[in-house]
This record gives sequence, structure tokens and C-alpha cells, in this order.
Amino acid sequence: MKHQSILDRAIQANHERSFFAQYPEHPKAYGEEGMQAGLSNVKSFFNNFYNGLLQENMNASVGEEVSPYTQEALNIRYPSANPEVYIEQAKKAFASWKKTSKEVRADILIECLEQIKTKFYEIAYATMHTTGQSFIMSFQASGPHSNDRALEAIAAGYEALNAYSADVLWEKPMGKFNLKLKKDFHAVPRGIGLVIGCSTFPVWNTLPGVFADLITGNPVIIKPHPKAVLPIAIVVEEMQKVFKSFQIDVNTVQLACDDSSHLITKVLCEHPAIKLIDYTGGSAFGNYVEGLSGKTVFTEKAGVNSVILDSANKIDDVLGNLAFAVSLYSGQMCTAPQNFFIPENVTTAEGPISFEEIAEKFKVAVSGIANNPKMGPGTLGAIQNELTADRVKNIGNLGKVVLLESNSITNEEFPAARTCTPTILACDTSDKAVFEQELFGPIVLLIKTSNTEQSVSIAKDMCEKHGAITCAVYCTDAVKSDWIKDEMESVFAPVSLNLTGFIWVNQHAAFSDFHVTGGNPAGNATFTNAAFVDRRFVWVGHREVIA
Amino acid sequence: MKHQSILDRAIQANHERSFFAQYPEHPKAYGEEGMQAGLSNVKSFFNNFYNGLLQENMNASVGEEVSPYTQEALNIRYPSANPEVYIEQAKKAFASWKKTSKEVRADILIECLEQIKTKFYEIAYATMHTTGQSFIMSFQASGPHSNDRALEAIAAGYEALNAYSADVLWEKPMGKFNLKLKKDFHAVPRGIGLVIGCSTFPVWNTLPGVFADLITGNPVIIKPHPKAVLPIAIVVEEMQKVFKSFQIDVNTVQLACDDSSHLITKVLCEHPAIKLIDYTGGSAFGNYVEGLSGKTVFTEKAGVNSVILDSANKIDDVLGNLAFAVSLYSGQMCTAPQNFFIPENVTTAEGPISFEEIAEKFKVAVSGIANNPKMGPGTLGAIQNELTADRVKNIGNLGKVVLLESNSITNEEFPAARTCTPTILACDTSDKAVFEQELFGPIVLLIKTSNTEQSVSIAKDMCEKHGAITCAVYCTDAVKSDWIKDEMESVFAPVSLNLTGFIWVNQHAAFSDFHVTGGNPAGNATFTNAAFVDRRFVWVGHREVIA
Repeated sequence: MKHQSILDRAIQANHERSFFAQYPEHPKAYGEEGMQAGLSNVKSFFNNFYNGLLQENMNASVGEEVSPYTQEALNIRYPSANPEVYIEQAKKAFASWKKTSKEVRADILIECLEQIKTKFYEIAYATMHTTGQSFIMSFQASGPHSNDRALEAIAAGYEALNAYSADVLWEKPMGKFNLKLKKDFHAVPRGIGLVIGCSTFPVWNTLPGVFADLITGNPVIIKPHPKAVLPIAIVVEEMQKVFKSFQIDVNTVQLACDDSSHLITKVLCEHPAIKLIDYTGGSAFGNYVEGLSGKTVFTEKAGVNSVILDSANKIDDVLGNLAFAVSLYSGQMCTAPQNFFIPENVTTAEGPISFEEIAEKFKVAVSGIANNPKMGPGTLGAIQNELTADRVKNIGNLGKVVLLESNSITNEEFPAARTCTPTILACDTSDKAVFEQELFGPIVLLIKTSNTEQSVSIAKDMCEKHGAITCAVYCTDAVKSDWIKDEMESVFAPVSLNLTGFIWVNQHAAFSDFHVTGGNPAGNATFTNAAFVDRRFVWVGHREVIA
Repeated sequence: MKHQSILDRAIQANHERSFFAQYPEHPKAYGEEGMQAGLSNVKSFFNNFYNGLLQENMNASVGEEVSPYTQEALNIRYPSANPEVYIEQAKKAFASWKKTSKEVRADILIECLEQIKTKFYEIAYATMHTTGQSFIMSFQASGPHSNDRALEAIAAGYEALNAYSADVLWEKPMGKFNLKLKKDFHAVPRGIGLVIGCSTFPVWNTLPGVFADLITGNPVIIKPHPKAVLPIAIVVEEMQKVFKSFQIDVNTVQLACDDSSHLITKVLCEHPAIKLIDYTGGSAFGNYVEGLSGKTVFTEKAGVNSVILDSANKIDDVLGNLAFAVSLYSGQMCTAPQNFFIPENVTTAEGPISFEEIAEKFKVAVSGIANNPKMGPGTLGAIQNELTADRVKNIGNLGKVVLLESNSITNEEFPAARTCTPTILACDTSDKAVFEQELFGPIVLLIKTSNTEQSVSIAKDMCEKHGAITCAVYCTDAVKSDWIKDEMESVFAPVSLNLTGFIWVNQHAAFSDFHVTGGNPAGNATFTNAAFVDRRFVWVGHREVIA
């Protein structure tokens, strides 16, 4: 196997959970000379029909992307077809893909990643102009980090397929003779997988499900968010080219584009031939998907992430870190914190500090990032969806004290960019109706509590009822922080303790962090443990008498 | 760890899937002198209150078991309580059980099996007089085979808990310095498990879920079938004694008995504190359980098992094997074949043989077992449920040709035993309405088809729509039998090919056969692969900055 050594290292890294990055995250590792070419290649897609996909029998076109940076339509048309076309083609592709050995599948899939790598710049610019992420986040999240998460899924899947003997001669002592049976154990793929993408991380959230399905023998139909197609289209094109070069049916992975006015997601979800569904997006639709019968479903839905501030060494380091965490991509990451539970007084090595003083310092820290012309635009990026900008603008309607108003900022490169600086509201514990909802976007609620016990109790309750993907805790007392970790893990929320400096609660890395635990309402699966792959196929054991 | 070597061997055996039996299946391996004592111990339970359970706060009693061998009430009363009592006690037990290390849990659970072993005779007689199984099947299925399946679940669970590093120092190169994080990965149990037993295999079908829950840190409430309590009560008593001896809360495993007139199963299923449900039983209730939201569910429901007869060496060997398969425990095994698809002519090494000749020979073979006074009673056992006997008696109402009428047989030891010999009906392929239902009990349908292709097509369709746990195929052509295996595995039915002699399609062994594939409507889980255990807990990864 050409890529055996990559696969072996990935399997080992997956178990060790220590730092491993097959795809370096810095653009310079990929030859920065490709950067300009990547940009002009992406621009050549604008105002054109996207004709790189190899999938067959497309007879219509759709497209409605708008760049959050220019607020102009990209005018890209993507090929599309009736949902039944994708299903029929996937069925056909399934017949041969399921017969392809796991070794060959692994080799082809890792080769896909290697080819995707050659398009990281294109994917980055495509991500910028659909999601509003900054260039550097677009590059990292949709490029190397996505590839690493895909490789993690390949590794986990490959290992799961090897869990049991492929065949065995079974001899059972029967007294005077041995009964002999030949047994074959087959990992039989479940069927066609549907992967439903989201608008903010159209590659990162899509690839784990795609590669988990494929390594375990299932063909995939990707239904991208109609507003964020280009980055995943470039990925699918590369994959289809690799499939073709291996003489594998190109329809083993298909991109099924639709239009907001005529969505095909439910038609695909409810199709009896669809056996596996991976979904990233809002909770309402996620709950619908989880409720479908006869489907194996993996979801990442919305959650309400908490910060629990108990004590700190240097409060400025804490608030600086948190200010960056809420500013990064303008709070549009599923891992961004929203609810800050802060007691009346916080103990620090520099003495006690009141809720009000913390609020004031936090305002300054957040404004400092947003209003710094060198830092602001690259940190905040742009707002993907007009509705998010509206939510921020109308935040005063919640009736709470607005400690920091949201503004737009100047992005010199993109004067028309849709931007919103973070807004900060003050609440108290009686404002459950306000803080129990996900207020997607750059919205922070500072919630004054009596003490840390109350902070934890409410954060836990929120997580149990509404889900959480992350929880940032600041606590300098080891016994107390162990207690907080215990409490939060009882509702399956991972705790990031005392993060300061160059690591933020938002960041989850392949081969190391389990993204979404799968234990609370924020989602039912995780990237990537064994359960993320081993339900995508079924062990079937045949047996035969040997004379 | 006291039982480390057993655990290591079990983990290895689980992967190798070759013959391994920690608990020998022959009664003689357990000192046959215990047999008489076992019987008198079981008799001492009759007409008494069952007072061996250590679980607390029971304030009522229930009991309605009837021996299928005497058709008399056992008159055993079991302690019971309001469902909320079990839940509250399980919650309390959970707090400490989840903090017990996986090594200690494994040790305690294997010790439970060792203590259960000392009661194999009691469990066997209790199984006989609740399920109607013969003594030898009662002994094997509820004794050593159950223990082996439990050990398999412990081994799989223990391994899944060890899948990832418990903690790691994560260093990420950041150019001039390394970012350092300490990461802890915790396998956090989901919560209280409910295991719902069935009336025919009250131990074998119950223990895998019980031990899978327990090894992964979840307390268990067992809700037995009200007509088959005694065997599992003896098991639970032994487990609670072991828990007590290790100073573990005895309510970590509880038996929640109820009454047919006042079932508590739904109350428990729908209780928000119940997070895991294992269910064995009819499809209607199983579908209800699978449809509950917020629960992780493992089911074994009903199926319609097929025999596909294409060709054979010696037809008499084939029919003798199948006659035994349908007679064993009077067709009350979930693995027993029901629908025999037979073409107009079957090729054998002795020449072609017609459907009618096969039907005639099969009648003779089945009658031969039933009417053989040495073989009949021990093979057929007794009928667990009056409704099953009624179904057999009224089989003529289906309007099909009855090739062999059912009779009762004389059981010298138990003259009042409820018995039914197998009945055989002739159908053709237009009788879908007849053969697409599970006709639970000793009922065999011989379905005449045009050819094997048609047989396979219908068997596959039945499996896809109604589920199947086994499929017996007789085919002497290697290419054709590979094709049949392929077709049947596409609907996730395991094929037993050319079984003759001392191995029957009904038998599934721990560490070797995946019982129920989990891929078709006969159930959503299997005993025991990784997916049977790794969804019972959630990986939660905490992280902390290291200066």
C-alpha cells in the first residue's frame, strides 16, 4: 500500500491523542508562491458554471453564494439533478466500492487527501468568500485541519474494519471428535451515506463523515449548504479525479447542490436508500434527522458554551484570552463561548476583583482587538449570514444592559465586508430565558452569580438541556477545578482549564480533541472515536461445515 | 487484578473469533453431585417469598410464574417497589460505581461470573420451569453459554475503555516555543441502564446488556419478563452478594419485577434518568423502544428465518439436521428456521429430488424425532406460552395444506407438560401474507419456488422487510453459494452453509458468532462487537495549559 506508513502513523496518533499533524497548518509549508495562483483560480470560478465535477447526468444548475467580504453574488452555477439521480448513481457505485478491499480504499482515500492538498489555496479563498472566515482561518480550517480530521476518520475506520479475524477455522471439541467450521467475518457497509454540510465550516465539518463513510465501504452524497458550496466543490472535484484515476466509479462521492427556495435535504434524508446521515447545523433540523427511523445518524447541532470564572493568577491574561476567543471569526464557531458565569468577586493572585471591574476590563480587551486595525479584520473576519448581523444589531431588544455595543469595522481590503464587533450584555441568574438560547454570532453574556457553585450548577443545567461543545474554566484551586471538571463531565462537556496565551477554547485538533462529545444535546457523535466509524458497517459472520 | 488472565484471554478470543469457552458447557464439568442439590434448592423457592436479593426498600411483592412442565403456578413472590425507588437507588449507586476503576470493575464482574457458576444447576432448573427448555438446554444456555456471553461483553467493554491514552502531555510546535497542554481523556458512563428480559431466554439474552452496562460504569435495572423471573433472580442475588463483598453498593444491579396486569416497562423506559436500554422481545415493543428519544438503545426483536435449499450431497443428512433445528425447544429459539424455500427439484449427489419427495422425507424426519420417546421430550422441551400452543393448534386457519399436524407428546417425567410437536405447512410463493409473519413456535412452512434465484430473492426481501437472525443455505456449488452469501449479507443476514451433523443453525457461540447482525429489522445490535459497548459511555477530553 502506497500510503501504509501514513495510515500506520495516523492509527497510532489516534490512540495516543498526542500532537500529530500530517498536514502542517502554516501556508508557508505549501509554497507561498501558490497563493496568488490560488486566488486567481478562485476568481475564475466567479460568474461561471462550475464544470470540474465528474459526476454524471446533471441536467440543471443552481447557485446563490454571496461573499460576506464583498456582499456581492459569486454568480457560480453548480450542476444539479433530481435527487433520484444521485441515489441511483450512488447505488451503482456502491456495488463496486463495497467490493474494493479496505487496503485499496484506504490508499485511494489518502491519495484524495494528497490531491486536495494541492488545492489548499483555492479552498482557502473559496472558504473566505462563502463563510466570511479570515484568510488564515480559511486556510487552516478548510485545508490542513480538515485533511487531518479526514485522515483521523480513515485511520479509525480502517482499524475498526480490522477488529476481528477475517476468517477462522473453528474447532469445537465434541469428546471423541472435533466439530470443524470455517467462519468468515465480513464488515458489510450499511449503504448510501448522506453528509449535510453547514455554512460556516463547509469542509471541516463535512470531511469526517465523508471519509468515515467511504473507508467503511459506503458511497456518499454530500448535500452542501446552498450558501457555502465552492470550498467543498473543489474538494469533491479532486476526489472524483482520484477515483477516476483508480478506475473507481466517480459517483462514489457526489455533490448534490440545491437552492434555498427548493431544498432537497429532506427528500434525501427520507429516501429509503439513504442509510447513514451526517449532519452539522441547527438543532431543530438536527432533531428531525435524529428522529428518522431506519437511519444511522451522526449529528453536530447547536449548543450554549459556558465560561466559568472562579479564580485566576493574572486576570488580564484570562480576559485577553477570552476576548480573543469571542472575537475569532466573530463568535461564529460552534466552540465559541457565550455565557460567562462570574461571581460577585473573583480571587486573583493580585487580589479580589469584582464582577463590575471584570466586565469593564473585558469590554476594553474586546474593543482593543476589534478596533486594532492590524488585528481586528483578520480576527473577526466577516459575518456569514445577514441574520446573524441582524441578531447582533437587535440585541438591545432582549431588554438587558448592553455593556458594549456592536459596531462594524473597517476592512481595508474589503470595504463592503459585513462585519460586527462583539457585543457584551450583563445578565443575572434570573435571566434564564435570555441565556438558555444559543445567540449565534459575536454575542457575549456576562452573568453575575452568587458564587462558583451556582455558576457550575447553571452551566451544567444549560448543558444538559441545551447542549455544549466546550466549557472554559478558570480556577487556580486544584481540588475545586477537579470538582468542576467532574460536574461538567457528568453532562458530557469537556473542560478547558486556565487557557491563556496562544491556545483558545475554540480550537479542537484532530488526533487529540474529541470534537463534540456526543453525550449532550449539542450532538450525538464525536470526531473521531471508534463509535463514529463502527456503526457505518455491520459484521456478518458466515459459517460452513468442514468435513 | 485477580482475574487479569481470564480477561486477557477473553479479549484475545473476542478478536480471534475462534473457539473459546471459559465456562465448559457440559454439566459434568461442574460436578454432577451438585445436580440433586440444585433441584431441591430450586424446589425450596416454590411457594415461597424470594428473599435472597440484597437490594433495598422493596415494599411489595409480585409473582405469576407457571411451569410449562407441570402447568402449575410456581407461587414464588418476588420483592418489588415503585419504579422511582429503583431509579433513586440506581442514581445513588451510580455515583460510586462510575468512580470505580475499570480494573476493579472488571475484577468484580468476573468474580460475579465465578459465583454465578456455583449456581448453574439452580439456574438450569429455574430456567426449565419458567421457559420450558429441556434440562440440558436450560443448563447450557442459562449457565455456561450465558456466562461466556457476559465475559465477552466485559472483555469488549474493558478494551473499549482502554482505546485512548488516559492522559497526555500535548506539545504543539509554535515556532520559537512549544505550546504545552495536559490532556485527560475520561470514559464517562452514560447513566442508568435498563435491561428488559424475555420469557424464553431470560439469562442468555439479558446478561450481555447487563455486563456491557456495568463494565462501562453504568448501574443496571433488570426488568425481567413476569413469567420468567427465577433464573435471573438467582443470577442477580449472586451478583449483589459479590458487590456487597467488595463493599460496592448492592443496588448497582437491581431486579425490578412487575406483574402482567401492571407492567412498569414503559414507565422505566420513558424515565429521563434511564439513558441506556437493552431489549429482547417482540418487534412492536422493540420499535417503540428504538423510537424513544434521548436513549441509547440495543434491541433484539423478531425475525423470519429462512432455509434456502439448492443442492446437497445427501438429502437425508440435510433434512435430519433441519428436522432437529426446528424441533429444538419446539421452534421457540429466535434463531430457529421457519420459511423453507425449496425449488421444484433439488440436485443431490444421489440424483434430483422433487419438492414433494423432500416434503415427505422431512415429515418423516420431524415425526421421527418427536415420536422417539428417548429423543422427543428432551429435544422439544415444553411450550413456554399458552399463546404459542394456541397458534400451533389453530394453524389450519391459515388455509394452507397442513402436511404434518401438530400433536402433544408424552413426557414421562412431566405428564402435564405443555407440548406441541412441529407442524409443517405447504405454501407457494403467492402466500406472502402467510410466510412474511413470524409464526413463533414449532411451525414450518415449505415454500415451493421456481428456482434458487427466486428462493433467494424472496428470502432477501423477507429479511429486509421483517428481519432475520439466521439463514441456512444448502448448496454444493461454490460459485453459487458465494453468490447466495453475497445476496444475504447485503440484507445483513448471516449464512450457515451446508450444516449437517452435530451443528445446527440455531446455535450461536460467544467469542465466535455475532448474534443478530444489527443490520436488519430483527434488531439494531449484536452480541458482541465494539459498537455494543462503545456507545455506553462518552469520551470527554479535558485540557489544561502547562506553564
